[in-house]
Order: sequence, then C-alpha cells, then structure tokens
Amino acid sequence: MTDRTTPVLLVLRSPGGEGHVPPVYDVADPHAPVAEALDLGITRGDGVFETITVVNGIPQALDAHLDRLARSAAMLDLPAPDLTAWRTSVFAAVDLHSEVPEAFVKLLYSRGVEGSGQPTGWVWMQPSADFTRERTEGIDVVLLDRGYPSTVAETSPWLLQGAKTLSYAVNRAALREAQRRGADDVLFVSSDGLLLEGPTSTVILKLDGRLVTPNPNFGLLPGTTQESVFEIAAHNGYKTAYEALTPADLRRADAAWLVSSVRNAAPIRSVDGAPRAVDAALTDSINTGLASRTT
Amino acid sequence: MTDRTTPVLLVLRSPGGEGHVPPVYDVADPHAPVAEALDLGITRGDGVFETITVVNGIPQALDAHLDRLARSAAMLDLPAPDLTAWRTSVFAAVDLHSEVPEAFVKLLYSRGVEGSGQPTGWVWMQPSADFTRERTEGIDVVLLDRGYPSTVAETSPWLLQGAKTLSYAVNRAALREAQRRGADDVLFVSSDGLLLEGPTSTVILKLDGRLVTPNPNFGLLPGTTQESVFEIAAHNGYKTAYEALTPADLRRADAAWLVSSVRNAAPIRSVDGAPRAVDAALTDSINTGLASRTT
Repeated sequence: MTDRTTPVLLVLRSPGGEGHVPPVYDVADPHAPVAEALDLGITRGDGVFETITVVNGIPQALDAHLDRLARSAAMLDLPAPDLTAWRTSVFAAVDLHSEVPEAFVKLLYSRGVEGSGQPTGWVWMQPSADFTRERTEGIDVVLLDRGYPSTVAETSPWLLQGAKTLSYAVNRAALREAQRRGADDVLFVSSDGLLLEGPTSTVILKLDGRLVTPNPNFGLLPGTTQESVFEIAAHNGYKTAYEALTPADLRRADAAWLVSSVRNAAPIRSVDGAPRAVDAALTDSINTGLASRTT
Repeated sequence: MTDRTTPVLLVLRSPGGEGHVPPVYDVADPHAPVAEALDLGITRGDGVFETITVVNGIPQALDAHLDRLARSAAMLDLPAPDLTAWRTSVFAAVDLHSEVPEAFVKLLYSRGVEGSGQPTGWVWMQPSADFTRERTEGIDVVLLDRGYPSTVAETSPWLLQGAKTLSYAVNRAALREAQRRGADDVLFVSSDGLLLEGPTSTVILKLDGRLVTPNPNFGLLPGTTQESVFEIAAHNGYKTAYEALTPADLRRADAAWLVSSVRNAAPIRSVDGAPRAVDAALTDSINTGLASRTT
C-alpha cells in the first residue's frame, strides 16, 4: 500500500473514550491537514506524546510507552487514554507501513478543539533517520541550566515536570543553543546543581563499575529506553542505580550516554568542549541489546 | 458573509516571507483541519501567538501586538514574520467577520511542518465571551510558584521566558490548579519571591497613589494591555512605574488588577482566599479607556 517514503497516519476515533466498537481509527492522508485551528494541541501545546522505535516491525517497549502516555495524560488532567485503542492503532500503523529496519511511531494526544470536550489523537509512522554516526562516534554535549530546582516536581506539580507534553519549545530552543555552541545535544542541570536529562533523552553514567541515572524524582521523565538499558546491563552483570548525580560525576564517569527511543544509546564524547572517554564495546553491546528487544 | 456564530479563518500564504504579491492569505473553512500532523506547532508547541481584542471593528493596540509577535519569533529563531502580511490579514478578518461589540483575532505563527522550512501562519477571529462579571465583581487569584528565579531571562535565554509561545501547557495546568483551589486565576511568583505575571495577563498594583507593574526584565511578557493602561493612567494624572514587587506589596496595595487583551482589567478581589480591596471607580475608568482606544 505504501512505499518506503510514505508515512502512515491513523486518526483515533475516541482516543480518550471507552466502550467504542471497532474500527478505533481512520486511515488519513499523511500530507493533508489533520488538526483544527482551535485544537488546544496547537494553540496551547496542551497534550502529550510518545515516540516509539519500531525495529524490524516490532514496536519496542510498547507497554512502557503506553503506561507513560497514560501517566503524562493524568498529570495534565486529560481523559485517561483508551490504551487498547492506542495499542491497536500502533499495530495497525506497523501493518500498513512498509517494513524497514528502523522506523518510529509517534502517538499524539491533545485536549482537542477548545470547548469540544473531545480529545484529539493520532498515530504517525515513518522510517527513522540513520543514527549510525551518533551511536558509534558519539555526541558532543553542553550542560544548560533548566532553571528549576530538583525539588520542583514535588513542590509545584503545575509545572508539569516529568510529563511528556506537546509544550516542547524550550527543549527545541535548548537544542538550538547547543548547535550555536558547536554541540549536538544538551544535558540539563537543575538550579541546585544536579544532572537532570536531555531535551528528549535520559543520561546514564558508568560510575564505579555500575550504571547510574538521575533519580526521576528530580522532575524527570522516566526513560523507557533507560529502563531497557538497565535490564540489559543487569543481565550482563552490572549493578544499576537511581541517584543524585552532579557534573563532577559526569567528568569522572568511565563512560556516559544519552539514551532515547529512536537514537538509542549515544555515547557522550565531550561535555562543554572537554573530551571525555567513551566505551565503544559497552555502547555496542547496549545498542545491540536494544535492537534485539522482542517487545 | 457570516453570521454571529461563524468564526473567520485566514491562512497566510507566506507568514515569514518577503516580496510576496497579494493575496497574502486564503480564506479557509474554520471547522476543517488546517494543520498537518508534523506541524511543529502541534508536535512541539514550537511557535508563537498573539490575541488581539477587536472593539466595534477596531483591532486594539495592533502595532504593539505585531511588534511583540516579531519579538517572540526572534526569541525562538523563527523567520521574521512579514508584519505587512499579518496586518493585512487581521484587517481582512475584521472585514469578513460580522461586526459585534467585542471580538478577538488570534495570530498563530509556528515553525511549520518539520523539515519543510516553511512556517505556518493563520489569523482566527470570533466573538469574545462576556467578561462583565470579571470586570465588575472582580476575580479570586492564587499565588503559584513559577519555579524560576527572576534572573532567568538574562541567565538562560533558552528557557524562552518573555516569549509568547505555543508551549502553554504549564499556564493551562496552573489555571486548573487555581480552579481546584476555588479561584479564577493565577499570579505567578518567582522562586526568589517576586510577583511576576498571570498565565495570560499582567498584574498592576495601585500603590502609594501610583500604578506599578513588575519589571519585564524578570522574565515577563511585556503587556500590551498594561502599556495601554499606563497611558490611560498617565493621561489621568497617575504616575506609573516598573519595579520589583512582592506579595507584601500586593497585600498593602490600594487596588490590584490582572490585565489582558480580551478580558481587559479584572480587579483582584482576593488573594489565596484573603479578601482585598477593589477600586470600582478606577477599574471602570480603566476599562472605559481601554474600550475607547482608536488604534
């Protein structure tokens, strides 16, 4: 039905609904408009999303992504997403899309047209870009202040830290700042000096022989790929931990990565222009493990 | 052409372009989809907007709003908006819309479909809600921590404080928190204890006989309505000032308002449940002055 360059777009009939009957989605023209002018997703960035890598036709860590979609939606007081309908739509998109080695599906769930009370939801699928260079040669990262203290999620839940919202303008601006500084990506630091996360990734350090990531309690998005990496690492005999980490920990770490759903594990080869060690063998082992997931 | 309940939607042909020839817009069906699934406005809240009140067919403070659209766009590294095309489209929307006492036009300018390099822009117009109650009886406000220090715009421009972006999920969440607390609106406070602004409004205090608002340098959106209020106040013999203000100043103020483009001046009648004085005569004078603007 589609060639390699044709994305797939499925619009859910009742993304936050219950008791629907099939079909749960309509196949839409991916190049035609799909959102109305008053959709709160575009007027206010008022919604949530997930991006799931699909390797050889298998959407990876799908349960973790669907769970996180529901958690993000709850943080925004959106109607609970109908995860059965979303899951069905993801598999339908995979069926309709040409099989390619690496693709991704993007789940977008907004509050819908203002005043309608009806959320908007769709699933988009297209082939992934080639991240071989980032996975093997590594990435240059800058540290940027996120402005918030690490306690913000507990004290000020209305700031939505830890929800994967459509309001990502700051994340995009941070990436442009990184490019201005000649780097590829960003690692945010809290105003009280703790390592947080990238704009669309989780940081993992190899520290004293263990794999360690910042505790999500610091206002972070729990990383689906980070969770998979920890499972792979535990299987290979590594201890893993969630801790408070600082830029000094990053400097002394034996290796460091930004991990995310489509790029997988990208080793950090420099921080603010200062080169740092990469562990090519462990990186390759992690990325091979990620690509081998069967769910 | 349209009845009272029909909105107007004009899609700009080249919202960030130059050297175009008329027509600069296309008239679109306001109830049909207009944004594609990969428009960065909806996938990342990556764009800016303005909302302009139209009183008896006159778009008010239009120059100030267009200037601010351009400033917000620059903060996001968007192509400079073609303000002639935007201005033309605003007046065309007003011409196409039924004349009603109070309406608003909303200008939306996003980075456009990912990878296209072409921004998206449209002008939406519809009648305004009736804000008589808010303007006369006043509003109940809660103070909420915004999490950032008042220095954030200077130290961390990538956080986009002071830009009117499409990434307003936090502003919406703060309003829901206010409703949970039985209030109507929010006044944000910086992590270092200064009054900031509302999610979609500017705060003004009547303090020691002057009208005072927080200095926009604290990471605030410069208020177009606040600027008009200051002009009206100065015309009526009030001194005006931009200063550092605290919750203690709000408590001791003779009167306080949240001002914004469509609701105009809404007197604050309580803060965190504690009643505070309103100045009905001055409020009425301000709102009469706002509604009488000729540009």
